[in-house]
Amino acid sequence: MQTLPLSDNISVESYTPGLHILAELKNINPDPLIDFSGIKKFLYHQIELNSLTALGEVFHNFENGGYTGVICLTESHLAIHTWPEFGLVTLDVYLSNYRKSNDEIARSIIKHTIEFFNCSQYNLKEFKR
Amino acid sequence: MQTLPLSDNISVESYTPGLHILAELKNINPDPLIDFSGIKKFLYHQIELNSLTALGEVFHNFENGGYTGVICLTESHLAIHTWPEFGLVTLDVYLSNYRKSNDEIARSIIKHTIEFFNCSQYNLKEFKR
Repeated sequence: MQTLPLSDNISVESYTPGLHILAELKNINPDPLIDFSGIKKFLYHQIELNSLTALGEVFHNFENGGYTGVICLTESHLAIHTWPEFGLVTLDVYLSNYRKSNDEIARSIIKHTIEFFNCSQYNLKEFKR
Repeated sequence: MQTLPLSDNISVESYTPGLHILAELKNINPDPLIDFSGIKKFLYHQIELNSLTALGEVFHNFENGGYTGVICLTESHLAIHTWPEFGLVTLDVYLSNYRKSNDEIARSIIKHTIEFFNCSQYNLKEFKR
């Protein structure tokens, strides 16, 4: 039996571009949730470490504390929003697999971000999109 | 029995910032998936129509067709990625409810984007984060 190359087995119906992980990080010390400078540096380090490609970003600190940030990647995007008054972060890591599987990289970025915030209470959901 | 004001019933444990809808739109005519100019105008019209506040954006057309775009909002973010070769779009609409409930606005933006692409085959998942 001949083995078909993988590309012949990808149909319009079955193509799934990649893994999207949604995380809610809870009961975090509010200090690193007030200003984006630390997490921005951390996320760009993760991008470099994992050979991802950033296309651009938006980061914004809110007047009363808390920030929102999105980094657009050729592989899709990272997004973070914080509520220091509730010790809460929502984090999205969505990496497509155009050239290679990035699933383990997505999980690694989530894991290291949880460690960055020294967070012990979190929810994770994984979606193959 | 006295009715407590809503704010007294929100604890650190129970606070859920808003609704995130993940959509996969399939079998779309590839033409509007190649260049972001049409969808960018459409999304900013939705933002204005629904009195949301944009903080910034990243849009990028890929050399071989297809684009990626993220608009950062005070209410969280919109994100779109396209694969014209597969007639595929993944769309995220995540709106927090800091000042008022934006759940119906999130659903309305999804609905109108599906109509924009004249798409009849799609998956939607809703998450209260």
